[in-house]
Amino acid sequence: MSQFINSKESLVTEAIDGALCTAGGRLARLDGFPFIKVIVREDWDKSKVALVSGGGSGHEPAHAGFVGAGMLTAAVCGDVFASPSVDAVLAGILAVSGPAGCLLIVKNYTGDRLNFGLAAERARAYGIKVSMVIVDDDIALPDLPQARGLAGTLFVHKIAGALAEDGADLEIVTEAAQRIIGNVASIGMSLDTCTMPGSPKETRIQEGKAELGLGIHGESGVELVDFTTAHDAMAIVLERLKPSAGDGTKVALLNNLGGATPLEMSVLAEELAKSDVISGIQHMIGPAALMTSLDMRGFSISILPVSSEELALLQVPVSVRDWPACNHIDVPRIRPLPDGLTPIKPIPSKDAAMAKFVTHCCDAFIEAETELNALDTYSGDGDTGSTLAGAARALKESIDRLPLADLTQLYRAIGLELSQTMGGSSGVLLAIFFSAVGDAMSSGMSNTEALKAGVLRVQEVGGARPGDRTMIDALTPALDALPNGFSAAAKAARQGADFTAKILKAKVGRASYISEDRLSGHNDPGAEAVAQLFEKMNAISQT
Amino acid sequence: MSQFINSKESLVTEAIDGALCTAGGRLARLDGFPFIKVIVREDWDKSKVALVSGGGSGHEPAHAGFVGAGMLTAAVCGDVFASPSVDAVLAGILAVSGPAGCLLIVKNYTGDRLNFGLAAERARAYGIKVSMVIVDDDIALPDLPQARGLAGTLFVHKIAGALAEDGADLEIVTEAAQRIIGNVASIGMSLDTCTMPGSPKETRIQEGKAELGLGIHGESGVELVDFTTAHDAMAIVLERLKPSAGDGTKVALLNNLGGATPLEMSVLAEELAKSDVISGIQHMIGPAALMTSLDMRGFSISILPVSSEELALLQVPVSVRDWPACNHIDVPRIRPLPDGLTPIKPIPSKDAAMAKFVTHCCDAFIEAETELNALDTYSGDGDTGSTLAGAARALKESIDRLPLADLTQLYRAIGLELSQTMGGSSGVLLAIFFSAVGDAMSSGMSNTEALKAGVLRVQEVGGARPGDRTMIDALTPALDALPNGFSAAAKAARQGADFTAKILKAKVGRASYISEDRLSGHNDPGAEAVAQLFEKMNAISQT
Repeated sequence: MSQFINSKESLVTEAIDGALCTAGGRLARLDGFPFIKVIVREDWDKSKVALVSGGGSGHEPAHAGFVGAGMLTAAVCGDVFASPSVDAVLAGILAVSGPAGCLLIVKNYTGDRLNFGLAAERARAYGIKVSMVIVDDDIALPDLPQARGLAGTLFVHKIAGALAEDGADLEIVTEAAQRIIGNVASIGMSLDTCTMPGSPKETRIQEGKAELGLGIHGESGVELVDFTTAHDAMAIVLERLKPSAGDGTKVALLNNLGGATPLEMSVLAEELAKSDVISGIQHMIGPAALMTSLDMRGFSISILPVSSEELALLQVPVSVRDWPACNHIDVPRIRPLPDGLTPIKPIPSKDAAMAKFVTHCCDAFIEAETELNALDTYSGDGDTGSTLAGAARALKESIDRLPLADLTQLYRAIGLELSQTMGGSSGVLLAIFFSAVGDAMSSGMSNTEALKAGVLRVQEVGGARPGDRTMIDALTPALDALPNGFSAAAKAARQGADFTAKILKAKVGRASYISEDRLSGHNDPGAEAVAQLFEKMNAISQT
Repeated sequence: MSQFINSKESLVTEAIDGALCTAGGRLARLDGFPFIKVIVREDWDKSKVALVSGGGSGHEPAHAGFVGAGMLTAAVCGDVFASPSVDAVLAGILAVSGPAGCLLIVKNYTGDRLNFGLAAERARAYGIKVSMVIVDDDIALPDLPQARGLAGTLFVHKIAGALAEDGADLEIVTEAAQRIIGNVASIGMSLDTCTMPGSPKETRIQEGKAELGLGIHGESGVELVDFTTAHDAMAIVLERLKPSAGDGTKVALLNNLGGATPLEMSVLAEELAKSDVISGIQHMIGPAALMTSLDMRGFSISILPVSSEELALLQVPVSVRDWPACNHIDVPRIRPLPDGLTPIKPIPSKDAAMAKFVTHCCDAFIEAETELNALDTYSGDGDTGSTLAGAARALKESIDRLPLADLTQLYRAIGLELSQTMGGSSGVLLAIFFSAVGDAMSSGMSNTEALKAGVLRVQEVGGARPGDRTMIDALTPALDALPNGFSAAAKAARQGADFTAKILKAKVGRASYISEDRLSGHNDPGAEAVAQLFEKMNAISQT
């Protein structure tokens, strides 16, 4: 499988420019491509504490997607999964730091620590106040003092960002960041590895297995576990987090590692919302792709116990593209179904002539069953005759329940009957036809006008136009001729139906996939059915 | 590869509840699970024209993610890639339609047309004003009158939604929707197929190929084309769109079909922004996942020529979760690099005693090269000696350029020199050490205090603590003893270095991956280097 890139080398700089050109003027970058890749707020006046974060690329939207008022001031980007250089970090610090100083928020990877650390020293040599915090929220390897930095970093960005935007000084912002880092815990699970740009994909994880406790750079998870369901996956992850989850009210951040679909993420959100493995999870950030690992089909959960002040800071609106809301977890709100789903049953009424007419029309379809099926073998699956005959039989059986004395209600009732007894597209279209005719009559149209309105509605919904080799090709001329009597209508319907045998390219329905040879010389079965119906009606009218 | 679901059957209902429980109370659903899956605005009072859309699931965030003030009033969801039932659509219509009526926005698939169409008839029978538009923006098969509905549907949702929210009547809203449908054109390209939940993945598209003109239900593209680069892919897609793109100012919607990474989508955004294949594309919606096909690694472009009124409607803010902004396409804003990236060169100064001292210290490392390399074979890649000796040689060569008469500046200059000449983590850490010592001295600390401050900074950045089997284990005791003279410091350093041979589990750096057997009995090469340095300094001080 290829990827939508031009080259590995130009990938990150092109992606940054792509993000900038659609950022609505809110972001800029430093003029240091390709070595220095720094995105900065365009509206920044250095009056407050600056927040600089970053690291290797491949974790989008982290970190450039979180640059903006209320979160990061600058994001320093390395190449995919590679730390940015000391010069790049220094450029970021120098570009955004004023007298209030600068907090560096660094994920715990050796390259990032060293390069951000040395850049901090070089900035301090210019008298800039710089503090640095190292995020190590991964709890996959509890014994390792050097835990990795994962999506829990977003909590630090958001809370430190809200404080800085509010004018807090560097010491306060740094202390808050350290406190969050001390409290946040994360772990991830994945069903597949990620694809490094320009490299073939490693297929490490077998069907039915998942990696637990993985990093965000394609490294293997700490443990290979059985994967059964989203429910069990969530339970495993939450059980691992439980010992680190602290007390009291908590916020959970549900992060898409890149390749899980929105459907899957929503299922996981529901599992998280209803789980009682960890008590006190009252708010959720996401589900959203926040700290990804390219296209890895996985998720991570970060849990942060929060004070009411911290919760408020997480909920302050921000002007960044990719921060989702921090919402209270609700039970789904459910409204009762509206009245009217069960159609009102028509009130039966008697009319002997109408009963006879309807019965004869039904008989026309029943008699034509075999012939129409045969015609349909040329253009469909050979069941048009049976479908129509079946509906006609059902209609005949229901004749005593129909409002025969009220034509408007009769049309509607036939529509309803057909929608309940006749399968397939043709059933729905005929139901729409009769319903629409009834609807038109109730608005005062004449019978013929109403029938034409029904045809138009069928065309609108079904998409067929005259000449498309459908029943429309017989029905429209028949209705046009109907004011001149059944004889004229039957003649017009017959002409229309016979003409369909000369239409060699169907435009809609299943016949549109059939070759011309096969269609040639055979009437469309729907049009033929209409012609036979009008011929039958003409015959009845003359007896 | 598995998926994060519980079962195919429960997938969509669980995902809907997952979306609802994190919707911040803005959405509700009708009480019709599992057959009727309808999401509605919780704040809806039926005072304006209602907009109902929907279709099969698997296209998230479409359509539930676009329910909210300014866009859809209700989304009717079928199962994955399956049209919702007539009853479900009718429930949606009845739940949200008031006297102002309801517009159904339907993508052009037979099932959706029929089921929405029949539901419309049934709603009309209750006297509800219902109009329906069919979106057919796909231009992959230009001869087919029944073009598919793709992501261009979002333009209809947004513009009709903005009009309805503003109080326009059903006729105006419907006309606008029809006009947009007449003007919008879309086509997609994919590098891989999608994975149906619970089914194995079809690997239809070979490496180096792409499908052009695909639908959003896993069906094959109209054409298999060569795939080379993101640039060429965008050019192919835009060339196909060009004949349908109309005149004047245009908005492009760049849609992720589900599986493309944010990096790829940003690269495609840049290609779209700078392309001149279609003139007049001044605004872009996205890149974002708007109308997906599960996890398909592909994108689609929809082009809409707009009047200034339509553009304004596209830019009205909305209260929905998944609508991205419609931004003007800018050239990336570029700021000059800040001053200070080229470090200020220290002003050389002479001090014969200091020159001699520094030279001797360098000689200590040069003499120890072979021995330290040998030690490093037990815990690393055998180059600690060479790395330090190389840095020492470079420092000796630079001795005439150093500010030897100013200790504060000398520390900083050595830090700078090491950062430029010494590779690897150890080079960065030593550079940080000397820079931090200079920094501390400039703030008024004594030499010993400043050296200790440097060690603390190295620990902060490098993450090593005493006992972690690093140079810290020799350096910290040596500095503690330094006030008592070089002899005491050298003795303490030696004790510390020798103790590292008994630390059998390294905690940081490469040695943390080495087995205990291999480390046992061998000093850490960094600690040994420090011990030898202090022993050398002690020897010098006694001559």
